[in-house]
Amino acid sequence: MSELPATMRVSVLESAGTVVLQERLVPTPGPDEVLVRIGSVGICGSDVHYYRHGRIGSYVVDSPLVLGHEAGGTIVATGSEVPADRVGERVALEPGVPCRRCRQCKEGRYNLCPDIRFFATPPVDGAFAEFVAIAADFAHPVPAQLSAHAAALIEPLAVAVWACGKAGVGAGSRVLIAGAGPVGLLVAQVSRALGALEVTVSDVAADRLATARRLGATRTLDAAGSDTVVGVDAFIDCSGAEVAVRAGIAAVRPAGRVVLVGMGAAELLLPLSLVQERELVLTGTFRYANVYPTAIALAASGRVQLDIMVTSRFGLEDVRSALEASGTAGSIKTIVEPGR
Amino acid sequence: MSELPATMRVSVLESAGTVVLQERLVPTPGPDEVLVRIGSVGICGSDVHYYRHGRIGSYVVDSPLVLGHEAGGTIVATGSEVPADRVGERVALEPGVPCRRCRQCKEGRYNLCPDIRFFATPPVDGAFAEFVAIAADFAHPVPAQLSAHAAALIEPLAVAVWACGKAGVGAGSRVLIAGAGPVGLLVAQVSRALGALEVTVSDVAADRLATARRLGATRTLDAAGSDTVVGVDAFIDCSGAEVAVRAGIAAVRPAGRVVLVGMGAAELLLPLSLVQERELVLTGTFRYANVYPTAIALAASGRVQLDIMVTSRFGLEDVRSALEASGTAGSIKTIVEPGR
Amino acid sequence: MSELPATMRVSVLESAGTVVLQERLVPTPGPDEVLVRIGSVGICGSDVHYYRHGRIGSYVVDSPLVLGHEAGGTIVATGSEVPADRVGERVALEPGVPCRRCRQCKEGRYNLCPDIRFFATPPVDGAFAEFVAIAADFAHPVPAQLSAHAAALIEPLAVAVWACGKAGVGAGSRVLIAGAGPVGLLVAQVSRALGALEVTVSDVAADRLATARRLGATRTLDAAGSDTVVGVDAFIDCSGAEVAVRAGIAAVRPAGRVVLVGMGAAELLLPLSLVQERELVLTGTFRYANVYPTAIALAASGRVQLDIMVTSRFGLEDVRSALEASGTAGSIKTIVEPGR
Amino acid sequence: MSELPATMRVSVLESAGTVVLQERLVPTPGPDEVLVRIGSVGICGSDVHYYRHGRIGSYVVDSPLVLGHEAGGTIVATGSEVPADRVGERVALEPGVPCRRCRQCKEGRYNLCPDIRFFATPPVDGAFAEFVAIAADFAHPVPAQLSAHAAALIEPLAVAVWACGKAGVGAGSRVLIAGAGPVGLLVAQVSRALGALEVTVSDVAADRLATARRLGATRTLDAAGSDTVVGVDAFIDCSGAEVAVRAGIAAVRPAGRVVLVGMGAAELLLPLSLVQERELVLTGTFRYANVYPTAIALAASGRVQLDIMVTSRFGLEDVRSALEASGTAGSIKTIVEPGR
Repeated sequence: MSELPATMRVSVLESAGTVVLQERLVPTPGPDEVLVRIGSVGICGSDVHYYRHGRIGSYVVDSPLVLGHEAGGTIVATGSEVPADRVGERVALEPGVPCRRCRQCKEGRYNLCPDIRFFATPPVDGAFAEFVAIAADFAHPVPAQLSAHAAALIEPLAVAVWACGKAGVGAGSRVLIAGAGPVGLLVAQVSRALGALEVTVSDVAADRLATARRLGATRTLDAAGSDTVVGVDAFIDCSGAEVAVRAGIAAVRPAGRVVLVGMGAAELLLPLSLVQERELVLTGTFRYANVYPTAIALAASGRVQLDIMVTSRFGLEDVRSALEASGTAGSIKTIVEPGR
Repeated sequence: MSELPATMRVSVLESAGTVVLQERLVPTPGPDEVLVRIGSVGICGSDVHYYRHGRIGSYVVDSPLVLGHEAGGTIVATGSEVPADRVGERVALEPGVPCRRCRQCKEGRYNLCPDIRFFATPPVDGAFAEFVAIAADFAHPVPAQLSAHAAALIEPLAVAVWACGKAGVGAGSRVLIAGAGPVGLLVAQVSRALGALEVTVSDVAADRLATARRLGATRTLDAAGSDTVVGVDAFIDCSGAEVAVRAGIAAVRPAGRVVLVGMGAAELLLPLSLVQERELVLTGTFRYANVYPTAIALAASGRVQLDIMVTSRFGLEDVRSALEASGTAGSIKTIVEPGR
Repeated sequence: MSELPATMRVSVLESAGTVVLQERLVPTPGPDEVLVRIGSVGICGSDVHYYRHGRIGSYVVDSPLVLGHEAGGTIVATGSEVPADRVGERVALEPGVPCRRCRQCKEGRYNLCPDIRFFATPPVDGAFAEFVAIAADFAHPVPAQLSAHAAALIEPLAVAVWACGKAGVGAGSRVLIAGAGPVGLLVAQVSRALGALEVTVSDVAADRLATARRLGATRTLDAAGSDTVVGVDAFIDCSGAEVAVRAGIAAVRPAGRVVLVGMGAAELLLPLSLVQERELVLTGTFRYANVYPTAIALAASGRVQLDIMVTSRFGLEDVRSALEASGTAGSIKTIVEPGR
Repeated sequence: MSELPATMRVSVLESAGTVVLQERLVPTPGPDEVLVRIGSVGICGSDVHYYRHGRIGSYVVDSPLVLGHEAGGTIVATGSEVPADRVGERVALEPGVPCRRCRQCKEGRYNLCPDIRFFATPPVDGAFAEFVAIAADFAHPVPAQLSAHAAALIEPLAVAVWACGKAGVGAGSRVLIAGAGPVGLLVAQVSRALGALEVTVSDVAADRLATARRLGATRTLDAAGSDTVVGVDAFIDCSGAEVAVRAGIAAVRPAGRVVLVGMGAAELLLPLSLVQERELVLTGTFRYANVYPTAIALAASGRVQLDIMVTSRFGLEDVRSALEASGTAGSIKTIVEPGR
């Protein structure tokens, strides 16, 4: 560990709209932690939301916060209880470390742990930094064929894998996906990888729909148009738009599933009679649990393409520009490279 | 079959508010059917709704309709393919016979069969009649210890068993039930029979809550009051009231379930953020499938009490009075006895 | 129907080893049936077993029997209750029609119906015939891109889809398959189509293993050698060999699954302590239920290759030669073409 | 903590057949642990097996070992991270603390954690001691109505709850249980509490069968006799006897379940053809996970009776006698009371 610097650069959100570069001490990994040199960090809509509004619902940025939770890198040091030979390992970071002791953790749903410490969620710092320390078992090894960016994008891929699991997507499934943003595009790719045979993606943006078709959607729908699909096995909302959710629910066959991934309004006018008459099963997703190995395997085998989703890259000193660029027309995934 | 009469009395809803007694031919059972002499028929809220409004949603009484779908009786004749020794068997009628050929039927969800013929749902006649012919496998044998009324009330009990199944009620479950009408009371009883340890029932009517406590609820809540329950494993709505559904959803623990049994408004303002953050699973029930044997067993073993729910009885000539009496204060279940 | 002949050629197994060509009346479809002109029939190991031994377990060929249950063809006539426009439709036949009334049928497991009438299982005739009548809903439409042979081979593909479902194969699964016969090769293909990332196939025949690799196996093992695999999520036996089953069970990770597809000896010396210490879940498959649409979709999309498995073809007059050729070295699937 | 003694008495198995009383230091709880004064410890067959044979399979007593893993007591001290107000709390000890970091732990199956530290399993000491330190979340609070013995017997009750869960026991279930030892009797009780309606228990000992009937079995069978039961939904083996397992498997209906609880021989001659033709699902249990709260609730509500199973009690100085008495005729559960 002799070659590690004492300090590192970190991009800090001081308050809504204000991002500054700071010098901080490189963290020391705890006994069960590893220290990771961050190679690539994807920008998520939640990062942009914190940057613009200084809060998401009840989570308020009331002290400086490091954003970024889609991160990959290389292990450079290990805690005392971690095998030292993990140094040099390339990893994808699973950015929420739970308490491991509550009912949710012990029943296998650690994503619902009330004490989870999740990157870039106040007051827990994220990965817009040169180094991050994290529990060793939340730094998942990635094979050589995955790029640094792909390692970072395992995180949104995990969201998609989790959503497809909840939706029961499998061989022969017909799936409707609302929203062709990064998560919707990944849900479409994962659906195909799981054997789904009809994958319809709806969105209002023609360029996003074109990307969806390129990434495996078998059909796309203009969400503002009148075309519809019916009788799908599952509807997965990645749009957060009430009109899309209502249309999606109406498209599901009896005993089919509805999975709400995109965070939208706190309330939704639900077509209750459809849920009852068709015995639809509706649920939402909150992050993910135990899916990183599967996500990594899907990406490593080439069944899901991640690099193709990277549309722009910025250095740590340009995080503000990166946040401004994220989500603009033509953009799919904006990347921050702390080591650039 | 020599002793069977050629004609029988039938109570017919001619249009909203108009019930008349008619003489009709006794039906001849088809090859795979049995003919049942009806002993007892429970009145359901849907019967009352058809009587008052002449329709339920898109189901319209545009020609005379025989109401009644909660029925028990005795087999008096059998079709050519049915063992003749079933004559004399006491049965509970499962009142919806599906097509047996569609995807829903073949996958075990015949309650969702689009071609199901369900009693007392236009244009299919129900059981306010002295005799009814039904598919032999939908006439379920009941043991001697079950009364005629209990045989009839296996139908709403099946609704409750189905709902508890969807809700995952089991040993140690904490369950919240909104609505202490007949279905809510049965859901409470079934929950207890399945090993649930906390069964909270909410309603606005104090007398119904008293009945709920007598039938096994471990706690009752005035739905108009401010007391609440939190952290339940499942919320089962039997009220159809939006305010109750919203309060119920808020009471469910992470990864818990919400089951909507009572038909209410066609739309519901759903607290979407709760569903997502807690990954709640929400579904509705539409009748039931494959639960009659379980319902009969629960009643036969005494774990669920049905006779106690009968609060008034009427003859076939008094169906109008029975429909008017159903659901009034102090009433739980009103019964029509065609053979009285 | 004017152009249909009155009689047809049928290949009949009179007793073990004796196959004769007969002229029989073309069947008349029942009200809910279709009449199918058979285009292609795959030969299954069970056909060969009946041919050689005149029995399989308690099923004895004690009167002449038509073999063949893997069949595809074209609808040429419809019963009175079936839409007449199905004439001309190309179909894959699901060769077991259940009673539709027993508990197994109504709960969605019609493959376990005790009264199922399954082709080529005494005393029910099979498809080595120019025409066959079958329940309309068991003649599944196949799209134009599927060949006649592929339509026939939907049947063994359905066996594989069912097995993979029982085994819980999905994205990222590691699967071990014992036996590289037709079913093992299909299980390997389906596993890949479902997102499995490690698919290991073991067999004693090097040529079969080469085929397995060509069809998607990521690794093959000489079953007689000492190489092993460990920690798989699922082991699917398609060999029926006790030594393979025992080795396979030892390869499964804690809480993994073991699915026995190949019929072997009636009894098996099971490593009980492994099943207990690892809480393995072991089950068997008996045909399939409700998977034809999925199987057809997998084949139609090209994710599973069926034509490649056809290694020889015979006319109806050469069924004996076909049965003798089936299962010989280099052979994967032998086909009988009744219309050739 | 001032009143705690510095040393305590411990009963130690030095080698097969040799049990001695020793004085040891009272353990200091770790930061996330509690110190429990042991009130009651049940003797399990595994304790007796270690005592007699010095090993169970690959687990060898090659250094002195404290036996006893069915324990209840009272918290007398707390680690630094545990709320101090837990002192005085009566608890049931869940005697296996897992690593919390491996795949099994994070997926909710911590009973299969390869690094679990389980009481009285070499080299981990058990509870035949005045005090034991254990992770705070594995000391489960029990309500006042549970006796000290009942708190101890939550452990075998957890085994039974886990087994019934694997077997899918629910309302209306028909269950066959082989073996009327402590676990079999608890499985029978739990089955009844879950709504099972037919609970048949088989054993060779008439007195055990009488106890089974007293505790809720609806029928008992002499395992050496010729009476049988057929068509059960689940068979749960608590005997470890091959003949019982084979008879039990034959009794299960199509698609039913077989759960092996009792450890018997390492291998079992399995009737494979039954498993396949009926698509039975067979699995084993290894301890339990996440069921203590349910077990405590079942006992606290009176649905399962634990005190009635205690047939003899010994002090810590008489552990040898207790081990000798355990499992003798007329005995159900032998208890060691360290504080007596």
